[in-house]
Amino acid sequence: MENFADRLFAAVEEKDSRVCVGLDPRLDLLPAPLLARHQVPAEAVVEFCREVCAATAEFAPVVKVQSAYFEVLGRFAFSTLWAVVAEAQRMGLLVIVDAKRADIGPTAEAYAQAFFGGEIAADAITVNPYLGSDGIMPFVDAGAEQGRGVFVLVKTSNPSSGEVQDLRLEGGYHTVFEHVGEAVRLMGAHLHGECGYSAVGAVVGATYPEQLAHLRRELPGVPFLVPGYGAQGAGPEEVAAAFDESGRGAIVNASRSIIFAYREGAWEPEQYAQAAAQAAQRMRDEINAALRG
Amino acid sequence: MENFADRLFAAVEEKDSRVCVGLDPRLDLLPAPLLARHQVPAEAVVEFCREVCAATAEFAPVVKVQSAYFEVLGRFAFSTLWAVVAEAQRMGLLVIVDAKRADIGPTAEAYAQAFFGGEIAADAITVNPYLGSDGIMPFVDAGAEQGRGVFVLVKTSNPSSGEVQDLRLEGGYHTVFEHVGEAVRLMGAHLHGECGYSAVGAVVGATYPEQLAHLRRELPGVPFLVPGYGAQGAGPEEVAAAFDESGRGAIVNASRSIIFAYREGAWEPEQYAQAAAQAAQRMRDEINAALRG
Repeated sequence: MENFADRLFAAVEEKDSRVCVGLDPRLDLLPAPLLARHQVPAEAVVEFCREVCAATAEFAPVVKVQSAYFEVLGRFAFSTLWAVVAEAQRMGLLVIVDAKRADIGPTAEAYAQAFFGGEIAADAITVNPYLGSDGIMPFVDAGAEQGRGVFVLVKTSNPSSGEVQDLRLEGGYHTVFEHVGEAVRLMGAHLHGECGYSAVGAVVGATYPEQLAHLRRELPGVPFLVPGYGAQGAGPEEVAAAFDESGRGAIVNASRSIIFAYREGAWEPEQYAQAAAQAAQRMRDEINAALRG
Repeated sequence: MENFADRLFAAVEEKDSRVCVGLDPRLDLLPAPLLARHQVPAEAVVEFCREVCAATAEFAPVVKVQSAYFEVLGRFAFSTLWAVVAEAQRMGLLVIVDAKRADIGPTAEAYAQAFFGGEIAADAITVNPYLGSDGIMPFVDAGAEQGRGVFVLVKTSNPSSGEVQDLRLEGGYHTVFEHVGEAVRLMGAHLHGECGYSAVGAVVGATYPEQLAHLRRELPGVPFLVPGYGAQGAGPEEVAAAFDESGRGAIVNASRSIIFAYREGAWEPEQYAQAAAQAAQRMRDEINAALRG
């Protein structure tokens, strides 16, 4: 199968959009009439995600499904998650499952099998690096065979991300996240596609624009998944540094500011998909304008 | 509800056992006749785990359920996991769900709800510290209200654990794992039970006995979940350092060497529970002897 990075950037260039729609279907934020129409919340989640995908697909080549909001559905968790993945892929979208898994040996292989091995499978997943390469390579290896990718957490967008990631290492020249970033680059060095990027990427938050720009320079060939746009505070100027001169090298995720756009402004609850489409289109245009400017 | 650490060490002292049985029901290692008896593998997993729990309960107060081996069951994942948790708790066992989750804000709250908020809930879960306190405190807070605990990965048992965890920090005095350990101690400082230990614990591998002994000295009041016993190579001498002078302060996990003991020696496949019981009893006695020696 084609290299994941080639699939990713072909989709980006086809739509001329670097937007990833974050599907975080929090039950407390779903439109009330939608919830009321369904007997079980899981069904409302599937409809909500399907309609958001259909409305935004023109403006965003990728969606990121947040596993936590499915796991909270209990016994419906994975049937619901995989139903959403299948719907999105049927529309030609690439799907990243944001599971942030981390384990080792046969256990990591079981996770990789869970996310990459089924009849329906993620196009990429997110992985946590705290366990070292034992916790990352099983995902990379399982994915590579099938043109699937991995995004390793490097510098995350949350306020406390520096507590571990910004620790300065002996010698004073590097931080933990720089060290992890370099390890990620090396772990994916054998998996570069024709586009010049690897199937092994990094999660780098837009809320730390200096670190983002620094990592873009230090990690050529590593695709970035950039969270933190919109509700978390970053805008087009902050994320422009994530891209190379050709406008390649990253996708930018926004969750709440797209999927729950109906809650801001003069929308009716039933217009949630239309509101999401408008927000995705605006984000696509803002980022493209910042890149061209 | 009673503090998690009080519940944990009361159970340890009642059975005079520091053994945690790791339920890693790998399908390729389950007894063939058991698999053959069931229409779907998930049913075999439930029977296997139930029988292992019933046979080992006398010798081990705690079980650790590895989420990956349930997630690989696809749509049966969480119904199977919660069936096993319910069976184990019905037998009076404490259940740690080894999910190594890490996320932030409302997403971490959704995970905490998924594992602590249902009608059946874990007694404790494992959490990954790479995101900093934003990724840990939502689990701690959600658990504390209900007498449930959290074990944060500090120094893991796998070969590559040092790639991030052993990085030496500026100044040269501390490593990443020491820094994380101290943060874990502080995050749980307000949650000490009458036993002197906190509801916020640390995962510290037995395969690095020097670091284990060092952390035991540096982190008084932090209960340790110690993996790496048995199949991963550590024995009673290595884990003795995890305990305080009164034999409290840690539980030691073994997975394969207990639950798949039937695959070593002269057992029939159908004797898997009996073999597990013997292995758990031996491990209990070995650890207790090392503590008394």
